[in-house]
Amino acid sequence: MTLAMTASEVMDYMAEEFPQVRDDFAIDALGEDRLTMRLLVDDRHLRPGGTVSGPSMFALADCAVYAMVLARVGRKALAVTTSCSMDFMRKPAAGVDVIAECRLLKLGRALAVGDLLLYSAGQEAPVARATMTYSIPPDTGVK
Amino acid sequence: MTLAMTASEVMDYMAEEFPQVRDDFAIDALGEDRLTMRLLVDDRHLRPGGTVSGPSMFALADCAVYAMVLARVGRKALAVTTSCSMDFMRKPAAGVDVIAECRLLKLGRALAVGDLLLYSAGQEAPVARATMTYSIPPDTGVK
Amino acid sequence: MTLAMTASEVMDYMAEEFPQVRDDFAIDALGEDRLTMRLLVDDRHLRPGGTVSGPSMFALADCAVYAMVLARVGRKALAVTTSCSMDFMRKPAAGVDVIAECRLLKLGRALAVGDLLLYSAGQEAPVARATMTYSIPPDTGVK
Amino acid sequence: MTLAMTASEVMDYMAEEFPQVRDDFAIDALGEDRLTMRLLVDDRHLRPGGTVSGPSMFALADCAVYAMVLARVGRKALAVTTSCSMDFMRKPAAGVDVIAECRLLKLGRALAVGDLLLYSAGQEAPVARATMTYSIPPDTGVK
Repeated sequence: MTLAMTASEVMDYMAEEFPQVRDDFAIDALGEDRLTMRLLVDDRHLRPGGTVSGPSMFALADCAVYAMVLARVGRKALAVTTSCSMDFMRKPAAGVDVIAECRLLKLGRALAVGDLLLYSAGQEAPVARATMTYSIPPDTGVK
Repeated sequence: MTLAMTASEVMDYMAEEFPQVRDDFAIDALGEDRLTMRLLVDDRHLRPGGTVSGPSMFALADCAVYAMVLARVGRKALAVTTSCSMDFMRKPAAGVDVIAECRLLKLGRALAVGDLLLYSAGQEAPVARATMTYSIPPDTGVK
Repeated sequence: MTLAMTASEVMDYMAEEFPQVRDDFAIDALGEDRLTMRLLVDDRHLRPGGTVSGPSMFALADCAVYAMVLARVGRKALAVTTSCSMDFMRKPAAGVDVIAECRLLKLGRALAVGDLLLYSAGQEAPVARATMTYSIPPDTGVK
Repeated sequence: MTLAMTASEVMDYMAEEFPQVRDDFAIDALGEDRLTMRLLVDDRHLRPGGTVSGPSMFALADCAVYAMVLARVGRKALAVTTSCSMDFMRKPAAGVDVIAECRLLKLGRALAVGDLLLYSAGQEAPVARATMTYSIPPDTGVK
């Protein structure tokens, strides 16, 4: 169980596919089944009042699990989100980054499951939790 | 069981709070426990390849249930999303609007539950399903 | 899109695998992408006070989607539940059957998604909603 | 943030309401926002082949969060499950207890959210994850 890509390789690959990724997200830490991703909070992620929007938190959770799966299976796979559950528990702090702590619970041949807690930077109580499920298509041999 | 606001009153109210709402969403139909909302698809909602992004579909589902709850309870309440589950079943068609058919399953004193199917305009099979749960704070007396 | 098995063939097959199925469940109706299943409510499904327990409603939802998938793909597949989301909206009526109205939203090669509303028999407002996702293993050739 | 009830007080209270609780569940550990509950696996929890059934895992997750909430708020509240999401990731080992590690993510005035990982006793990889949301009714003053 080693990683197929480093954090910067993952970011490079995601930025090729989704150019805006570098403006929105950064990987703070990457381990064999853990990844920490940061939403680089900017005006476009905010609701009036300064709180981070639900869709921005969804995007962070989705991107964190995608990055974690990529780091493990490498470029060959094109994983697709199949389901998501989220609970929004506290109002995010105004104008600070949101940090997603992702744990990869399963990486099977067909399905990957990642669990996340989201925090406002510098705060102890999570603002949200999420689970994202990815479908991993049969190996297409593109390495 | 009548509506507290019309579709255009709901849109006006949401646009006061969230200025970008008018660019992104339109209410196609509103009934006592049903609402049809359209994501006015634009470049900013798309992934490379032209498919509508997950966060945009999340935003549509979230906004549709919020509008449905507003239409029923009126301006007095400030509903907050507490949880969400989504299943992504098919790739949205490239460059066409996404339509959310929302059904209000419950409107209690403290919680509202809305169920949604999302369709690419003109297609029969749903691209996604979602359930959004809103917490309705105790009446603040602002009528 | 025709059915691979009739309602009674589905019940026979499930009863072979899970003997208690016949005591707990009955199929009221079966169509190409719709199935109505009834929980034959008995003391063992009840909480004190006479209300149907959460685990019994989960079992009904799970079994209904399994039956729907079986009816479509036939005996060859051994589908496995991979995820579930449920919302409990109202207290079930005491001592009456619970009816699950299932709609098959997707039947792909690898994943099936079924959506359900659960009702206390004779009542209009749903007591719960559920989505069950099943993983369908690669065809084993047993036809 | 201290506990309102000890583990044995929680079990006594649950057994008053749900007599079968003692046969099915035991609390292995209880902390301020953590609870470990064990499903005392018996034939009635098993599927053919010896694996623990989905409804039994649902019941364990539901009961663990209920116990955690009780331990914090005490007898005065009658919490009710409002929503649940579960992912089933691996087949439970045959004939061994299932252990739920519950973490209380939020205990608000109206809503409690508990997150769980479920393990087959003695195994490292979780068999399932779950989130249960409980609604806490306004204080009825019954202490």
